[in-house]
Amino acid sequence: MEVTKFKEKAKAYHRKIVDVRRHLHRHPELSYQEHETTEFIVNQLDELNIPVDRPLETGCVGIIEGGKSSSKVVALRADIDALSITEEGDHKEEFLSENEGVAHCCGHDAHTANLLGAAHILSDLRDEIEGTVLLVFQPGEEKLPGGGRLLCETGYLQEKGVDVIYGLHSYPELEPGQIAVKEGPLMARPDEFRIEVIGKGGHAASPHQAVDPIVMASQIVNQLQTIVSRNVNPTESAVVTVGKISGGSAHNIISEKVELLGTVRTFAQETADMIKNRIEAIVKGITEASGGRYTFDFDYGYPAVTNTDWATNNLVHSAKNILGDEQVHLLDDPIMAGEDFAFYQQEFPGAFFFLGSGSEKTDSTYSWHHPKYNIDEDCFLTGAALMASLVFEPIPKS
Amino acid sequence: MEVTKFKEKAKAYHRKIVDVRRHLHRHPELSYQEHETTEFIVNQLDELNIPVDRPLETGCVGIIEGGKSSSKVVALRADIDALSITEEGDHKEEFLSENEGVAHCCGHDAHTANLLGAAHILSDLRDEIEGTVLLVFQPGEEKLPGGGRLLCETGYLQEKGVDVIYGLHSYPELEPGQIAVKEGPLMARPDEFRIEVIGKGGHAASPHQAVDPIVMASQIVNQLQTIVSRNVNPTESAVVTVGKISGGSAHNIISEKVELLGTVRTFAQETADMIKNRIEAIVKGITEASGGRYTFDFDYGYPAVTNTDWATNNLVHSAKNILGDEQVHLLDDPIMAGEDFAFYQQEFPGAFFFLGSGSEKTDSTYSWHHPKYNIDEDCFLTGAALMASLVFEPIPKS
Amino acid sequence: MEVTKFKEKAKAYHRKIVDVRRHLHRHPELSYQEHETTEFIVNQLDELNIPVDRPLETGCVGIIEGGKSSSKVVALRADIDALSITEEGDHKEEFLSENEGVAHCCGHDAHTANLLGAAHILSDLRDEIEGTVLLVFQPGEEKLPGGGRLLCETGYLQEKGVDVIYGLHSYPELEPGQIAVKEGPLMARPDEFRIEVIGKGGHAASPHQAVDPIVMASQIVNQLQTIVSRNVNPTESAVVTVGKISGGSAHNIISEKVELLGTVRTFAQETADMIKNRIEAIVKGITEASGGRYTFDFDYGYPAVTNTDWATNNLVHSAKNILGDEQVHLLDDPIMAGEDFAFYQQEFPGAFFFLGSGSEKTDSTYSWHHPKYNIDEDCFLTGAALMASLVFEPIPKS
Amino acid sequence: MEVTKFKEKAKAYHRKIVDVRRHLHRHPELSYQEHETTEFIVNQLDELNIPVDRPLETGCVGIIEGGKSSSKVVALRADIDALSITEEGDHKEEFLSENEGVAHCCGHDAHTANLLGAAHILSDLRDEIEGTVLLVFQPGEEKLPGGGRLLCETGYLQEKGVDVIYGLHSYPELEPGQIAVKEGPLMARPDEFRIEVIGKGGHAASPHQAVDPIVMASQIVNQLQTIVSRNVNPTESAVVTVGKISGGSAHNIISEKVELLGTVRTFAQETADMIKNRIEAIVKGITEASGGRYTFDFDYGYPAVTNTDWATNNLVHSAKNILGDEQVHLLDDPIMAGEDFAFYQQEFPGAFFFLGSGSEKTDSTYSWHHPKYNIDEDCFLTGAALMASLVFEPIPKS
Repeated sequence: MEVTKFKEKAKAYHRKIVDVRRHLHRHPELSYQEHETTEFIVNQLDELNIPVDRPLETGCVGIIEGGKSSSKVVALRADIDALSITEEGDHKEEFLSENEGVAHCCGHDAHTANLLGAAHILSDLRDEIEGTVLLVFQPGEEKLPGGGRLLCETGYLQEKGVDVIYGLHSYPELEPGQIAVKEGPLMARPDEFRIEVIGKGGHAASPHQAVDPIVMASQIVNQLQTIVSRNVNPTESAVVTVGKISGGSAHNIISEKVELLGTVRTFAQETADMIKNRIEAIVKGITEASGGRYTFDFDYGYPAVTNTDWATNNLVHSAKNILGDEQVHLLDDPIMAGEDFAFYQQEFPGAFFFLGSGSEKTDSTYSWHHPKYNIDEDCFLTGAALMASLVFEPIPKS
Repeated sequence: MEVTKFKEKAKAYHRKIVDVRRHLHRHPELSYQEHETTEFIVNQLDELNIPVDRPLETGCVGIIEGGKSSSKVVALRADIDALSITEEGDHKEEFLSENEGVAHCCGHDAHTANLLGAAHILSDLRDEIEGTVLLVFQPGEEKLPGGGRLLCETGYLQEKGVDVIYGLHSYPELEPGQIAVKEGPLMARPDEFRIEVIGKGGHAASPHQAVDPIVMASQIVNQLQTIVSRNVNPTESAVVTVGKISGGSAHNIISEKVELLGTVRTFAQETADMIKNRIEAIVKGITEASGGRYTFDFDYGYPAVTNTDWATNNLVHSAKNILGDEQVHLLDDPIMAGEDFAFYQQEFPGAFFFLGSGSEKTDSTYSWHHPKYNIDEDCFLTGAALMASLVFEPIPKS
Repeated sequence: MEVTKFKEKAKAYHRKIVDVRRHLHRHPELSYQEHETTEFIVNQLDELNIPVDRPLETGCVGIIEGGKSSSKVVALRADIDALSITEEGDHKEEFLSENEGVAHCCGHDAHTANLLGAAHILSDLRDEIEGTVLLVFQPGEEKLPGGGRLLCETGYLQEKGVDVIYGLHSYPELEPGQIAVKEGPLMARPDEFRIEVIGKGGHAASPHQAVDPIVMASQIVNQLQTIVSRNVNPTESAVVTVGKISGGSAHNIISEKVELLGTVRTFAQETADMIKNRIEAIVKGITEASGGRYTFDFDYGYPAVTNTDWATNNLVHSAKNILGDEQVHLLDDPIMAGEDFAFYQQEFPGAFFFLGSGSEKTDSTYSWHHPKYNIDEDCFLTGAALMASLVFEPIPKS
Repeated sequence: MEVTKFKEKAKAYHRKIVDVRRHLHRHPELSYQEHETTEFIVNQLDELNIPVDRPLETGCVGIIEGGKSSSKVVALRADIDALSITEEGDHKEEFLSENEGVAHCCGHDAHTANLLGAAHILSDLRDEIEGTVLLVFQPGEEKLPGGGRLLCETGYLQEKGVDVIYGLHSYPELEPGQIAVKEGPLMARPDEFRIEVIGKGGHAASPHQAVDPIVMASQIVNQLQTIVSRNVNPTESAVVTVGKISGGSAHNIISEKVELLGTVRTFAQETADMIKNRIEAIVKGITEASGGRYTFDFDYGYPAVTNTDWATNNLVHSAKNILGDEQVHLLDDPIMAGEDFAFYQQEFPGAFFFLGSGSEKTDSTYSWHHPKYNIDEDCFLTGAALMASLVFEPIPKS
């Protein structure tokens, strides 16, 4: 297979991919509620005569049977859900989210559009494909238990006999035309917690007759900082973030409760366990010290994304062909973000990588989940080509 | 005027007052939005042939012209608005708020019902009344700028030539049949503030690329405690309460902003000014220390409620007659809550008092603004009688 | 007795009093270690032929038997101990403390000198004195259990039949020639606490193997602020101060322990009890939250200084005579500082007052316990006269 | 050279090494004050007829000229200073520190004794040694600027033509008979800081007239935690520890100042710079928020210990011979502690390693700088043998 073919085709379909991405960007849907998004994808695949399975309520899997008979099954995965966030950014004025409080600020619109772009390329090259290609459009990556986990639990992919799975995430720290990857651990395990700090409500002018949950919650947030600063081994990587705090309804009422939502990032189960215990000890200590109470829930999330060596080598091989050697960055360290792609990797060999999508000129260097997150749409030129190319990489004999 | 008449009439109208109170309790409306409440009051007064003026958009003033001609004008005031709070409490199951997130957890339903009760009594005694009685049903006591202020600014009461004004607040710390009052300062000046803590949003797993506003806001709440503990003269009374904290939308996103709403209670303007300056210095110091920004708004609220000596004496005199000497409590210290009744007292002589409304048997000893706040409806037996009786107290010659 | 006599004599002895004060200032001694100070006082009294009793190990009582026989016994009290503080201040360069780390930064040098000045005046007027005057030079006012308490426990003053006791404190907020006083509660009850925060020591680079007591102690100090800001009734006066924090020996070792010393000021025993319980709850909650331990000691200190009405009237009478009416300030509020003069008042009628001692020109407006605390020595002109004059005020018949 | 010889000799001298270690342990001296320690070492070397140079005021270098003429120069280094810490531990009752407040809680007594043990062995084997051995007994490892730095700055070792330098640290996490090492980065860069938090002193009962430095310092300690928890990239290793806090002299005085001493551990200069800036921003923000002031000093400390590949290979080779293959642990991660051995490595090839010294039975598993730190003296059996053996490892031709 000549590598220039992938790039030419990606260029030819670029306008189409951009349009798809902008449509999706304007119409974001929350995790597990991607009904319109799914219909849109199904229609797009239908136009390409790619049949679709729908093993879950939302999301779908397109199936391309190659012209060359083989038992080889390669899966390419994109996630399709959006975030609960209010988008900002005049740079995207033509395609800002039209769904109040929901936005594609994590680039899943781009991942989906890019995989649909690869679908076009592969559709053209169908005769040259050995075996089967599965285009996995997965729901609910942003929200526990994770659409990847739910899909794996259906047994659908196992039944199809998947040999390898590839996935990507847009990456504002590299420019279009570049990727980053590493063997082994690539992304952290993200766990979630919810704390309810319960005081005793009352009039704001009579604090001595109340137990102030906002003061307790603030003390808790401050002391949670000591987990990473004092309790985690400094040579280990860990994050404890409180992402949401909410309590009280008015300036002159002491409320009953404050809710805290947060996430924990680690690479080892025992570190996650230690942090879980420390969080609860802090919440217990502070609330007891003030005469309050609490509830504490901790949801273990996704495992760490860990790339298979040979699949990573396939990826690097294709990427160097398409992007050039200098454009393929091998990371020294993993990153702390999590991905439910990890569930596929518990079942199948696989590789996940970061597709450069940031540029100053398109104001697309904001970090993931920033309200102004954007991508440089030139990333599709190499992204779609690379995904298509991976189908033609070999599977080692087991 | 025989004092027993007031008590007998209050007893006779008790069921009616209770029904009115429960109707209002079921249908609470937020400050300045008391449209249905106003219609309800107007209808009640209409049934008594009491004409009504409406100097503000909501609320109203009923006018009873006494049978004895005189220039004397006595105003009786009730506040009619409810709080932004979700009510709790099975003890009130028959008349819980039907308006989600709004509730009469400060007893204004009772104040209004009680004044309508007094209207019935006074209506019966019309022939014996000298001069004019104004029944002031005031909107927006809970929210700046204060309905009392707005009403005073219309000049309506000044035009009517008000000689004295009386008002009350339900009081869970005394039982029905008791009142508390003091000459001079009775209630604090309540000021309000709003702080917006602005960081830099991002992915929860990459705190080093963000500026976390929840951590900054928590530090601010903690340091605000030092204003009362370290900066206010210990022999002065002051309160700084953060009543609402709100920031972030999800467990895995570092948000851009956190909002803090709070109240400050003092008795002296210069203490309020000092506290205002200290709050801003803390917010500035913390946000600068972390690379964040802020906005800070401070709204000076109501003045301190300060009772006129002769009006307080009238009140004590009537109260001792109706309740008995031992039931009239003279307070040593003012309380930290505020009341926009203070605006009337800047224009007219006046006295404000606390009407006992708490009892274990009716589960009505929760403090003001508690989500389970309730009143023992027996308080109307003395409350309506006392308000009516005040009309017959003398006005000193000036 | 002509009042001008007191003032003339005070003026005549002024240089002598100043010299005494400066000598004492240069040679401060800590509580209960006032050996040289005591010898100095005894020598001074000896020169005046005033015999001395020494009911305690340090301090002494001078006895002036008046020329007019009577059972009347008036006690005048000065405290003689210094503070554990390093003095600062070029304004006092001629008489700065020569005892490293110890200083008269609370004016006890002035109290002692002033009473010795009164001794001179009274010695001259001996023939006109009825009954007995006791000049009480008391040790250990600054340190529990309080020299005043120890002296009362000996029964010495009771045996002497003391009718009334007077005492004073230098007061930087008024100028020389002025005093301040009030009937009833004048000064707060000062209680003391000591907290030992116990972690687990280790290498500063391995916090995960240690439990950091400096972090715990800092959290405790911060949360102690919430006692006054949230738990004390805002209309009550209370102070919680941590005066000393100490832990660790080097920058690169995580220490085992941190010690916190502090004081609590209140007027009511039950408030002191509530605060004691809150402190321990906070210390327990924080240390448990972090896997540490603690010890907590709380020493109830002196009662509140509470002036007897008739003794206060005597004081005001003498003061108006000597200082002029406008120079006698009647305070509205008590102050939060404590004084072991309170122990005498549990046994005898008595009055305590504040002697104006601050002026810009002598740089003597620093507050008590400030390292630059100083007094304007002109205060002796009225202070010594007033103390002497009190001996001639009447004792009511009981 | 037969490897058994080293082990037999180490065994033969074991009692002697133990006695030396215990003597040193009883008589610890602070950094740069190791006068008696130096005399003791010089005497020991003298008994072995090993001449001594003294390029610094304390510490010394013993010189063994080998029997085989060569320009080869191998340096073996031990650090000799003790910590400012009060020792604890009944397990060492026979040889506890006799110098109040100073103790060998970092094992430098053992390092010194071990090198003197190696001196005995090498002295016996003198005829077989090629070239020169330098026994470097270095002062001041625990305190900036570092004795290693000072020695390097004299040029003494450069003049001697050192080819390679080896050093070790006792290591409680492995047992005697084991070592741990890694190529490249082994130990962190330790920087130090000192913060003076300046408020305004006063009486503990009048916080409103003071600016409380203990409250400010506590807020600073709490917010310093956010540097590691929020500002450092989670995949980087960093530590910020406050090791000492000290302010105030009594429970009832608000002090002028609090002093904080601490250390920062990183591997990259730019991270150290970022942390330095963050510390100052926090100190500035907090003190400005409260009306206080500060001073801030940051001393860049030692570089990171980074092992030369070939020297590490030599070490591993000797260690496997003497200890057995399974006893040589190759570390994955560096550790956060620092060592001024790093200065030698900026001048010469070198390898530093960790000598197992912990065992339950001798209660010697406490971490470095713990007040009960101890070593299992069996560690000398392999430690002295290994240091001697390194002399016979080859130097690569440059």
